[in-house]
Amino acid sequence: MNDFYSPESCRASCLRFEIDGTQVGWIPPQVAPLLTRYPEVFEPPHGGAVSLCRSLDSYGRRSEAVDGALQALRQEPSLSCLRGWRDEKYSVMPKFSDPPLMWMERAATSLFGVRRYGVHLNGYVVSDSGEVSMWLGRRSPTKQTYPGLLDNVAAGGLAANAGVKHTLVKECQEEACIPAAIAEKARPVGTVSYTYNNEEGVFAESQFVFDLELPLEFKPRVGDGEVQEFYLLPIDKVKELLATDDFKPNCAMVVLDFLIRHSFIEPDTEPCYQEFVTGLHQKL
Amino acid sequence: MNDFYSPESCRASCLRFEIDGTQVGWIPPQVAPLLTRYPEVFEPPHGGAVSLCRSLDSYGRRSEAVDGALQALRQEPSLSCLRGWRDEKYSVMPKFSDPPLMWMERAATSLFGVRRYGVHLNGYVVSDSGEVSMWLGRRSPTKQTYPGLLDNVAAGGLAANAGVKHTLVKECQEEACIPAAIAEKARPVGTVSYTYNNEEGVFAESQFVFDLELPLEFKPRVGDGEVQEFYLLPIDKVKELLATDDFKPNCAMVVLDFLIRHSFIEPDTEPCYQEFVTGLHQKL
Repeated sequence: MNDFYSPESCRASCLRFEIDGTQVGWIPPQVAPLLTRYPEVFEPPHGGAVSLCRSLDSYGRRSEAVDGALQALRQEPSLSCLRGWRDEKYSVMPKFSDPPLMWMERAATSLFGVRRYGVHLNGYVVSDSGEVSMWLGRRSPTKQTYPGLLDNVAAGGLAANAGVKHTLVKECQEEACIPAAIAEKARPVGTVSYTYNNEEGVFAESQFVFDLELPLEFKPRVGDGEVQEFYLLPIDKVKELLATDDFKPNCAMVVLDFLIRHSFIEPDTEPCYQEFVTGLHQKL
Repeated sequence: MNDFYSPESCRASCLRFEIDGTQVGWIPPQVAPLLTRYPEVFEPPHGGAVSLCRSLDSYGRRSEAVDGALQALRQEPSLSCLRGWRDEKYSVMPKFSDPPLMWMERAATSLFGVRRYGVHLNGYVVSDSGEVSMWLGRRSPTKQTYPGLLDNVAAGGLAANAGVKHTLVKECQEEACIPAAIAEKARPVGTVSYTYNNEEGVFAESQFVFDLELPLEFKPRVGDGEVQEFYLLPIDKVKELLATDDFKPNCAMVVLDFLIRHSFIEPDTEPCYQEFVTGLHQKL
């Protein structure tokens, strides 16, 4: 996972994606020419930016016009990410605290580098003697993204108008069969945020992180099939795995944040402590 | 407290401070001309940077040469920060994980914008019914910086070659009479980092944050006189005070980080949650 804000990234060749003069994303150089096919939706690139047409002056009009263009672009062979179309609407806004300006299909967000928000759960148990172990999932080998890699016990994207805690409880049920009565006890503990780019576009993501101490006798079970198996691992084993390529990268970040907040990594023995903390909480 | 990395800051007019071609700080525009008086220590400004003379090729030589120049500059009326000379040596290095290239008197670090590291303690109690209250100190009215403002229960700068936990335990004893047997139980939980500038220069600071649940019957006591009084406040009262100007700014950040990590602030009810988290963990 690279850093979109590092000097070596493709950022200099990207165009700002703007709505009413406010930036809401980044458009990669290979995507911008395709958008000129829809002059009633996107203004021609100008001053390093692509803007939505000013005539699209409401949440509904913007969302529908862009969705129309995207539906047509699903035929475009170079836009492989659109083959993962999910019919999930994500909110588009400059900051999380701003009112959404439109919604956009989840699979298209990387083409516009719009910020995506999600939830991730650290599920753990504490033994009678105080030893902490962590539940991790292994992603299904048939999953479109990061097949077969280690994942948090539950995670998911935040759809338009969905509450954060509500989404967490829903994902706990769907992905790991954690009943709401248990999942409701999950505690919000911050966010992990980062921006990277690959051939599918720009990913500016912020994950709302929750910790949940699970009952010792409780075992997560495979729910919707996104995970093939769950493991309960001692913290030392989790640390070992973090140093390998076996983790989905953003899940590794969520686990690293857990290990720091729970004092399993200490500043006197980890030289990169300070860089780890700032790297986990990058400005979007 | 402003943000040195915001577009409106004075950063564009500052010069990079470099040792052997590596940046270790920022020199404000009013400071650079004074350094030209010491051509055997500082090379003339070049390409937006002031470099230490290459002939200063060791930790000891660099430290002594710069200290000599600074001792002379203590007479300079415009450098008010040097009137707070403390005889405390701070390490100068590009990142915390790098070997120090020199030491510098603490009071001078803002003139060179070198990174300063410190420790801050969140001291709190949990009542039998589970209610959390926080111990806060009020700074002495005669303290040179931020007199009379609210502070964490203990905090201090990290001197050259000092351990992080060791410094925390020492500050607990000196500032709040917390005995080592209790202070040793403090748990490292991350860092809070930020960069700001004022008339005294550029402050690039990272605080190693510790949480310590204090025994219910324990009361911190005024130690070295840096604090005039300690208060035990319920979390709701702490939240209220955070919204006022009564806190030393970086202590407010440490407390805000505590409130987020301990779920006293939640993403569904705090619109700025995401911006709070990234604002508390800025790259230096």
